[in-house]
Parts: sequence; C-alpha cells; structure tokens
Amino acid sequence: MTQGFSVLPVVGIGDVRPGADLAGLIRDAAPWIEDGDILVVTSKVISKTEGQLVEIPLDEPARETAREAVLRAETARVVARRGATRIVQTHHGFVLAAAGIDASNVDPTHLVLLPKDPDASARWLRDEFRERFGLAVAVVVTDTMGRPWRLGLTDVAIGAAGIDALTDYRGRRDAYGNELQLTQMAVVDELAAAADLVKGKTDQVPVAVVRGLPIRTEGHGTGAAELIRGADADLFSLGTAEAVARGLRVSAEVTDAAAFQPGPVTLPDLPFPRTRSVIVPDNTAVAIVAWAPVGDLARAVEVGMEIQRLRAVLAADGLATVWIEAGDDPRLTADVPEGGVPLGVLAIGRGSLPSL
Amino acid sequence: MTQGFSVLPVVGIGDVRPGADLAGLIRDAAPWIEDGDILVVTSKVISKTEGQLVEIPLDEPARETAREAVLRAETARVVARRGATRIVQTHHGFVLAAAGIDASNVDPTHLVLLPKDPDASARWLRDEFRERFGLAVAVVVTDTMGRPWRLGLTDVAIGAAGIDALTDYRGRRDAYGNELQLTQMAVVDELAAAADLVKGKTDQVPVAVVRGLPIRTEGHGTGAAELIRGADADLFSLGTAEAVARGLRVSAEVTDAAAFQPGPVTLPDLPFPRTRSVIVPDNTAVAIVAWAPVGDLARAVEVGMEIQRLRAVLAADGLATVWIEAGDDPRLTADVPEGGVPLGVLAIGRGSLPSL
Repeated sequence: MTQGFSVLPVVGIGDVRPGADLAGLIRDAAPWIEDGDILVVTSKVISKTEGQLVEIPLDEPARETAREAVLRAETARVVARRGATRIVQTHHGFVLAAAGIDASNVDPTHLVLLPKDPDASARWLRDEFRERFGLAVAVVVTDTMGRPWRLGLTDVAIGAAGIDALTDYRGRRDAYGNELQLTQMAVVDELAAAADLVKGKTDQVPVAVVRGLPIRTEGHGTGAAELIRGADADLFSLGTAEAVARGLRVSAEVTDAAAFQPGPVTLPDLPFPRTRSVIVPDNTAVAIVAWAPVGDLARAVEVGMEIQRLRAVLAADGLATVWIEAGDDPRLTADVPEGGVPLGVLAIGRGSLPSL
Repeated sequence: MTQGFSVLPVVGIGDVRPGADLAGLIRDAAPWIEDGDILVVTSKVISKTEGQLVEIPLDEPARETAREAVLRAETARVVARRGATRIVQTHHGFVLAAAGIDASNVDPTHLVLLPKDPDASARWLRDEFRERFGLAVAVVVTDTMGRPWRLGLTDVAIGAAGIDALTDYRGRRDAYGNELQLTQMAVVDELAAAADLVKGKTDQVPVAVVRGLPIRTEGHGTGAAELIRGADADLFSLGTAEAVARGLRVSAEVTDAAAFQPGPVTLPDLPFPRTRSVIVPDNTAVAIVAWAPVGDLARAVEVGMEIQRLRAVLAADGLATVWIEAGDDPRLTADVPEGGVPLGVLAIGRGSLPSL
C-alpha cells in the first residue's frame, strides 16, 4: 500500500476562553503531535483565544439591533442579500454569509467574530509549537462557508502558515504531453475540508491533525490571503439581483456615447413592440428616425421614452447610440408620414458606456 | 489517539480505455480495499470507461470550432463569460467552466466529457464491488471546479453512492444549548477534496480510498445531485456582467406598473442632474410634473427620455411609476413656469415589475 495521509481528531480541548494558552491546550490534548503534522484549527477557538468576542443583549429587539451593528462593522462591501441573508465581503477580503459572525458554540451573551488576521494567527501558533515544544508543524485556520450553485457548506482555509495555499500545476504536462491549463489547486481549502470530516459542528473537536503530507521546512509561505480573488477579477462580484439593479441604474446613464463609432451593426431583436413613432427601415439600419404628428407634444414625450428604452436594450448588446435632434434637416422628411414632423435620429454604432 | 481516517492513493491503474473493466482495474491495483472503504474516483476514468469521449481535429481553426460545438451541446445555460472563459450550467445541473469538458489526461485527438449520470456511475461501481468482490464500499465521483471569490480549484463530488451527500446539523444544539442554524455540510465534497490531496493532476492516480469514516450499509443514498442548487434558489445564478446587461434590458420594460400603489415613498438620490423640464417639489413627492415650452417638440422628446431614465432608477430601488398624460388638467398649470405647458405627471409609488 503506497503511503497516504491520515486525519486525526484532537479531542478534549474543552472550552477556550480569551487569553487561553491555545498551543498548550492543543499539545496537552494531543501529546502525540509530531514533526511534519498539519494542525487544522477551527477559527472559532482562535477568535476566542484572541478575545474576538462581542457582547450582545439576550432579548429582542436589542439583540437584533446589536447584531446588525456588528455585521456592519465587519463588512467591507455587501455582495448580495435576500431576506435576512447577507453575503458580504469582510475587511480581510473573504466573501461569506454574515461576515463570518457566529452565535453557535459560544454562550448566548456573545458573538464570535473572525480572527483579525488569520494568517498571523496561523504563524503565531506555528511559532509557539516550534519555540515551546520543538515541533515543526504547519497550521491551517478554517471557517465554514457556503458557496454559489451548490448546497451544503464546506470548511475552507482563512489562515495558513508552513504550507502554501496553492499548488500550481500550470505549465506541467500530463502523460500525453498536453500542457495542463488553469490548474492551481487550493490545497489549504482541501485540507480544511478533509479535517472537517472528523471535526463536526457540535462535537467540541476544534482541531484535527493531518499527518503524511509535505509541509514547508522554512518560512511560513504565502498564507490563505493568497486565495482571495479581488472583486475586479471576479465574474460573480455581485449577487444577481444586485447586479440587475445596477443595470437598471446604469440604464439611466445610457445617453450619448462619448466613444461612438458609426458603422454597420446588427440590431438585436428588440423586446417590445415599436409604435408608429419609431421607424426601423430594415434590420441593418444604423439609424432610427423618430417623428411625431405636427404639434403633438404628448406623442413627442412618448417618443422620448421609447428612444431611451431602445438605447438601454442596445447598450445591453454593447451598442452605443447618439441622439441627433432633427432641427430642420430636410433629408429626414422623406422618412416621415404625411402630417408628421421629424424629431431626430438615433444613430447606432459601436462603443460602450464608461460604467459598464 | 482517537480514531480518525486515512486517505490512500490507488496507484498503477494506468490508462483506461472505453469498455475497460474499471472495477477490476481498481481491485487489481488495490487488493487491500476492504469493507467500509470509500472509493473516491476521478470522473475522467469513469468517462473514459463509459466512452464519454468526442473526437476532435488536431489543427486550428477546426479544433476550436469542434470544441465550441461540443461545449454548446453540453450546455444547458450560460451563466457567465469573459473572454474565452465560459461558465455554464450543464444538463446535470452543475455549474462549471467549459461544462467540465477536458483535454488533459487524454490523447490530443479526443475531448473527455463528464459522465452522463455520475450518480448512476457511482451506484454501478458500488454494485460491482459488492457483486464481484463481496465488498461493501461507498463511491464518490469527483471533478475539479473553480468557485467565485476564491482562487484555486478544488475537487468536488458529482456522483455518490453508499454515502449521503449532506450531513444535516439543523435542529441540533451545541454545548451552550444554541440551536445550530443552516448547517448542512457537503460531506461528499469534503471527501472529494480530501482525496485530491493524494491524487494530484498529472500523477495518474485517479482513485483514492478513504478509510475510517461511516458509509451506508443499505441503499445508495441520495446521490450528489442533491447538492445542486437550482438557479431560482441561487443568489448568484448569473455572472455580474450578464446580470447588469439583464438590468439594462429590463429597464426597457419599466413602464406603467400594473401593481401600482400610490402613497408616500422616499425618493432615492437620483444619479443625474435634473433639467428644468422635470420638477421635484420636495423630497417626499410622490409625483413629478413634467413640462416643456409651448410647442417645443424637441424639449418634449428630451423630457420623455428623462422620464424613462428616472423610472429605471426608481425601479432599481423597488419603486413603481405610472405616467399620466397632462391632457388639459388645469391643476398642473400652477407647477409650470410661464410659457410652459404641462406634459404629464409621473406618479411614484410601490409596486414591482413582473420580470424583477
């Protein structure tokens, strides 16, 4: 049997209070920890050790108000909300429900926040084991997170020391000579997940030991912060409902495009029936002539509304527009029925909104 | 030391061809597999066994065209795209890059698709081990996926038999008596992640064995399909750019709200300067009176555009509007400067668009 690795629960740590000697508690509960082990530690015991607790009233509505205030303080950016659920990006950069604030496994008068700097906590615990017990271990600090598209939570890494967060396979080749693409594996997240299988949620097993996988002998490595994908690089930086709302707001900014390039474009199928006030000569048109009956202000307002709706739909397809008032341009009169007066031309071309 | 579990690589399986005896290959490579083991199997060897391969030309541009066609066929719904990256939902319901189609670890003339029904594949392999070798094992079929917000890929489960996909902690209480909330853990995903730590990507280790965790003695369980979160229940069912574009399109549908309820509303800060053609009497207004100089069709068109832009911004804040043409209503004249004529009133209230 080729060598694999094992995952061992550390039981008997008991309740951890602010200022507790966490390294000592782990060492006492698991005197069998040895060189090369990876300690996978639930962030909650780190937070408790570090005093990352907030007092909270027991009774509503004061409890909910206090909870809201704590959530606001821990939030760098709201990513999505639905009902009472709030997915936020924390000041660390992690995206998770309720900023990782937790009311479980703590007495009801307190909330537990995430550690202030989980990578620093991991480095500290690693150093403690080296300095006090002469043991070279790696440390992964974990939290439980949900994810889009898949039900169920998994544990992931929010801090790491002594092991690199990512294993990079890019540039390597498989047995067929194909170069592997895009294969950076989040090793510390996989370690966090593996450890959760013996930790559970109510069992008071806040630490597991992974034995048999390589760790760094020198340096702490990059830390789990390396796993944070910036919102700019993320295809899912906002919840769908929030992004749709942003689109609605952006539609108000759809006016004359600064970077307009006239030229033949393919018009999309427009999703609402056009009234007689807008004429699309044919499907390769690059301009729409708008008109109204002579002197009919009410129809002119309608035309304006419709032009703006058209512009938004065209912008969604990456098409830019410029509205040119008709003035007295006699060339437009041919496109207008008898009794009508040209209002203007909506030129359609390439370009984009600065805010898109 | 309390019992934990171990993860053991299965080496020596070698290349797997369509129609191969996968159960036999695994058993031969790992005669040490025993009752209660969990076989964590990379989907690629399942796909190869089942002949889920597509021939593809070696040369561009034919190769890219063929790849595109395969991707289209495997796609139920495009979730997000940026450049060459396409995140799609497959017919199984999984959301992943390029529908899980893979060109690595296969000869360059073929692409590997995901198994048609990975839960069925897991059940089949479990049954094979029971019937042919008299062994009660569980099976997890894995694939490698990216995720929003975090860099690096992890292995997750796309098929399972003999072990339940989710462990449900809801309703259970912690040591402090707090009821645990929302704590369904995706156990099979954590198993997939754990197994990847010994499998690697180029090492030809397509199977790992997890030993020491409980499996089902009867029934196959719910399968990994249980982990699929429907788009309706997902806060991130669309990429941000795609959802913003949807918002732009929806803005064209922002017209008179069917479910309009007049009443006092708080107007949001409107993000563009209002021109003289729109009057907001005060910030608790529920109606905006629009006017234009007598006979000025061009200004009336502008007012229409602006009304539509206002409506979109208001809709983003959940406010509905109804546009009422002025007609000859003398009550409006007081709100209009000398030389102007009232065009209509935009009533603002509660309500929502059917499509939001």
